[in-house]
Amino acid sequence: MKIPRLYVENAEKHENRKVVVEEDGKVIRFLDEEEEYCGEGKILYQVIYDDFDNYILMGTVSRDMLIEYEVGGIKQITYIKKGTRLLEIPAEGYKVYPIVDFGCRVLEGHRVAALQSKKGDVRFANTPVNGIVLFLKEVPSKRENYVFYILPEKEIRFEEE
Amino acid sequence: MKIPRLYVENAEKHENRKVVVEEDGKVIRFLDEEEEYCGEGKILYQVIYDDFDNYILMGTVSRDMLIEYEVGGIKQITYIKKGTRLLEIPAEGYKVYPIVDFGCRVLEGHRVAALQSKKGDVRFANTPVNGIVLFLKEVPSKRENYVFYILPEKEIRFEEE
Repeated sequence: MKIPRLYVENAEKHENRKVVVEEDGKVIRFLDEEEEYCGEGKILYQVIYDDFDNYILMGTVSRDMLIEYEVGGIKQITYIKKGTRLLEIPAEGYKVYPIVDFGCRVLEGHRVAALQSKKGDVRFANTPVNGIVLFLKEVPSKRENYVFYILPEKEIRFEEE
Repeated sequence: MKIPRLYVENAEKHENRKVVVEEDGKVIRFLDEEEEYCGEGKILYQVIYDDFDNYILMGTVSRDMLIEYEVGGIKQITYIKKGTRLLEIPAEGYKVYPIVDFGCRVLEGHRVAALQSKKGDVRFANTPVNGIVLFLKEVPSKRENYVFYILPEKEIRFEEE
């Protein structure tokens, strides 16, 4: 699988590529490496995809972001606005085998990972909501540990609201 | 689930919405209903999503198309060029229960549908390739019959090529 490209607003340290979002997402414009832009759109800069979780605070997307996934001439673009809430699903075990990856749409109850205990028993981590997998983080720890970041189809609301 | 919007090039009968693709996909511009466009980009017109398979001939996309899927302020856009080959996976049985739907990324061996025989035996239809589900067609017939249209990650080549 090719690695998707991640672009975020106000990135301090960034790669050369840029994308401009105009009129609240009505126009999406990829710039060439040296291309200058002087319109009124929001400029998003390419950052390292593996740093995705740096832009998530308490389950909320902290900056506008755009994910570009290109395979064989087909371009898939996902534009996520600041303030969008994501669901984080942990998967921990002696061995963890992720079943889904970036871009997978998952339906309620789908398995996202198989978890194997030291004795060899297998359980599964499931998603409680319909949504799209945006990122899969491997957390360094003694046991194998992953977090799935899922963009839910229905907005998540906290109880105190 | 919300229904995705499908836009195609040179649509004869179409809805009001339009999207313009400029510079081979570098710029994607959604037009307002009454907005006129006079640049050099390709205009794609919204058509009925259920007519998706009208634009597929012998497994090949016959016109440039763009699928827009919008949920809660998040926009996902897939731009597919004319000539792209899709994989069609049939699923037929006494009862057919689709497991995946539009937008699901599937990995080789994943189940796409459960097929139940009249006796109650259950088998599964699987995908032989990694890819993205673009469309799910219900074919009218005596037995339940679906076709999954999958955009493969790796281009499909026929043997005679």
